[in-house]
Amino acid sequence: MANEKRGKGDNKLEINRKLGKIYKIGLALLLIGLLLTACSRNVNQPVTALKWDISDGELDPKVWGKYFPHQYTSYQKNLEVLDEDKANYGSSERSSHIASYPWKQNIWAGYGFSIDYNEDRGHVWSVIDLKNTQRVNDQTVGSCLTCKSPNVPILYEKLGDDYYATPLKEHLKDPNSMIPISCANCHDNKTMELKIVQPPLRDALKKLGKDPDKLSHQEKRTLVCAQCHVEYYFDKENKNRVTFPWTKGFEPADIEEYYDEIAFADWQHAKTGQGMLKTQHPEYEMYNDSAHFTAGVSCADCHMPYMKAGNEKYSSHWWTSPLKTAEQSCGTCHKDGPEARRERVKYIQDKVSEQLHKAGQLAEELILSIEAAQKIVGVDSDKLNEAKALSRRAVWYWDFVSAENSMGFHNPEKALHSLADSIDYSRQGIALVKEAVAQAGGSITIQPAKTEDANPTREITEKPDI
Amino acid sequence: MANEKRGKGDNKLEINRKLGKIYKIGLALLLIGLLLTACSRNVNQPVTALKWDISDGELDPKVWGKYFPHQYTSYQKNLEVLDEDKANYGSSERSSHIASYPWKQNIWAGYGFSIDYNEDRGHVWSVIDLKNTQRVNDQTVGSCLTCKSPNVPILYEKLGDDYYATPLKEHLKDPNSMIPISCANCHDNKTMELKIVQPPLRDALKKLGKDPDKLSHQEKRTLVCAQCHVEYYFDKENKNRVTFPWTKGFEPADIEEYYDEIAFADWQHAKTGQGMLKTQHPEYEMYNDSAHFTAGVSCADCHMPYMKAGNEKYSSHWWTSPLKTAEQSCGTCHKDGPEARRERVKYIQDKVSEQLHKAGQLAEELILSIEAAQKIVGVDSDKLNEAKALSRRAVWYWDFVSAENSMGFHNPEKALHSLADSIDYSRQGIALVKEAVAQAGGSITIQPAKTEDANPTREITEKPDI
Repeated sequence: MANEKRGKGDNKLEINRKLGKIYKIGLALLLIGLLLTACSRNVNQPVTALKWDISDGELDPKVWGKYFPHQYTSYQKNLEVLDEDKANYGSSERSSHIASYPWKQNIWAGYGFSIDYNEDRGHVWSVIDLKNTQRVNDQTVGSCLTCKSPNVPILYEKLGDDYYATPLKEHLKDPNSMIPISCANCHDNKTMELKIVQPPLRDALKKLGKDPDKLSHQEKRTLVCAQCHVEYYFDKENKNRVTFPWTKGFEPADIEEYYDEIAFADWQHAKTGQGMLKTQHPEYEMYNDSAHFTAGVSCADCHMPYMKAGNEKYSSHWWTSPLKTAEQSCGTCHKDGPEARRERVKYIQDKVSEQLHKAGQLAEELILSIEAAQKIVGVDSDKLNEAKALSRRAVWYWDFVSAENSMGFHNPEKALHSLADSIDYSRQGIALVKEAVAQAGGSITIQPAKTEDANPTREITEKPDI
Repeated sequence: MANEKRGKGDNKLEINRKLGKIYKIGLALLLIGLLLTACSRNVNQPVTALKWDISDGELDPKVWGKYFPHQYTSYQKNLEVLDEDKANYGSSERSSHIASYPWKQNIWAGYGFSIDYNEDRGHVWSVIDLKNTQRVNDQTVGSCLTCKSPNVPILYEKLGDDYYATPLKEHLKDPNSMIPISCANCHDNKTMELKIVQPPLRDALKKLGKDPDKLSHQEKRTLVCAQCHVEYYFDKENKNRVTFPWTKGFEPADIEEYYDEIAFADWQHAKTGQGMLKTQHPEYEMYNDSAHFTAGVSCADCHMPYMKAGNEKYSSHWWTSPLKTAEQSCGTCHKDGPEARRERVKYIQDKVSEQLHKAGQLAEELILSIEAAQKIVGVDSDKLNEAKALSRRAVWYWDFVSAENSMGFHNPEKALHSLADSIDYSRQGIALVKEAVAQAGGSITIQPAKTEDANPTREITEKPDI
């Protein structure tokens, strides 16, 4: 019995010896493998191991791109202007908003947007499309460049608030101003860290008690986008300084209250004389308090998902609808497959779209009704003034969703709540005008704008050098 | 060297011997432990291992509860009528809706809901609260019992469609009809499987091409609730048969179209004469196509979460706001903690609540305006008729959210879209009435209902025997 066991012990010893040999061979093979891998990585110049050498003030994405080929390649996809894999709403094609939704011509009468307003192309077109829009003329102030080029912080450093007051055409003489939104808009050239460079967001954060240089990485993955994807206004009393109206909150009602308090108007309406508000692109404000926002999801999580090229991981720099990168954008959290996700997005956006277009057409009806009623002798001006004030509100609450680039998906509750308000204000205003007209014994007819009334879009042949 | 190794082999042998001994002792201890556990489980009558013996037709939850003590204990929590851990909206307290939201008195003028309409208490109160509501009288048909007692399928088996036509007071003489919603409403007494027992849902599913006896378990975890948590109507041409208007879809517009096609009205409005629709409790319809619904989440996943009692797992049978069991209800998928979840729900519900109450008050204004305008000589009856038709629509789209028990949370997009429509219809109607009144040279004033105008709620002392 004891001998038998000893025999087993010897067998184990033999096995141990063999295992030791296999182990040594394995270790040798592993080392050779690692050496080979290291060599091949040197040959292929891997992104992660590389150092970069980008001078201060270097803005050219071609220079930055040399060190970050995957990011750069994805960035170049922003040149695409044909939407073959189209999202539900929105596009990179430069179609005319005022032809597609003709009521916009009357809603913005007297303001540039009624003359030229197109679906925005990718970020790489930012300066070219600004330079060529028919909304721009010789008097256009420098403020308009603010979101379009990484040269803005440099110009601001040099000129201070005079940057805003300087004519746009002066700024555009500087070749660096012709560089569109690119690497330097969000990254530090030395550390490659995300960085808030745009003066208006730096100002706005400070007003809210936040230090723009002490933000977490995840906060910055949203806030670098909020440098531009926000509502803003030109502070006419301060050299047209670009200012974010954030001190009361991020709801449409909060921002309306801010503007009302300073009696601000973007323009006087050509048909009604009412001081009106033009919403810019309040993606950040809309996104605030949404399901994704409160879950800590950043803009970059969906719009700049992590991709793989071979065995390299990188963030996509193709800024587009996450539906086009749904597997990487949504699939990290939502495992229900591309069709279910697209259907879900469509359900929300269809609901928003329906109320959005109803609200837009009603706002036009109100504006045209006021215009027509003003011509009737003896019409009650108090009622008309009330209707005009309602037109300002109706347009604000509609445009908060219209100008925002997600057809409400960024925050369906905020979007649909805003549209219900807009519809309410338009209907109230229309009723008031009717009442005033009836009391004056008059009658009005209105003629909504048509697609064919839209001012044609100017063709642009220029291409960005990126 | 060889000896040394042999020595090591001997040591191993010794270790192996000791391990063998430890192993045997361990095995013996484990067996003793298992025996002891088995004995103690017999003593404590564990739920999972027990067989049950419940006769066909046995409806008493006390009898079922003997075999399922944890489910039964949680079921008894439905008796609670004080909301100490209150959700954001909704409650188990029997407060008066028509006092809290006085416009409901005028919206439902001429219909029972304007006289008595209270926040519903837990499911165990279903028959007692039905029996005692002031909406019920000697003529009330049996149809009204349909969602209140597990005795309904038995009565229907016996009487066929005459069940619906039989007076409610006749049904209530059967002691089994006094048993409130309980085990047999959803479970098979032999297999304990979920089962669709209510005739109206069985009918509705068949009309949609679904076999009510061939549903997946997860489908049934929603559909057993949809036996009652639905919009329905009494088919007056078929003995007041309870019918679900589902053949066109689950959107408010789909169901409105269904009703319009059959020219259906729940009642004629006392103030306007308009044939109106009363939405019941369209939880299932609202929930359809929502984010949670499309993610495959069932009603039971949130409202009947899995709980633990000692080492026993069971489904909670306390039907209440998931905010009260948020850790188990939401926490399975949402890891962002109770406060963040509650805040998120509140954000959505506050948005819905704001538009809901606006829409309700506007619907009242429309109805009262029509009532007042009808008294003016020479008023344009076409315009008034148009306004009346709008009042039907305004009330339907408002009540779809008002009668639904989630303050829009079950589907915020559907809820807010519906409210935007309601507001739109009310405003259109109010404007039409104003126009007609002005044209007739008249004027109207309206007086909205007040809290103190509400008919007092009848006190109920009876308690369920469960």
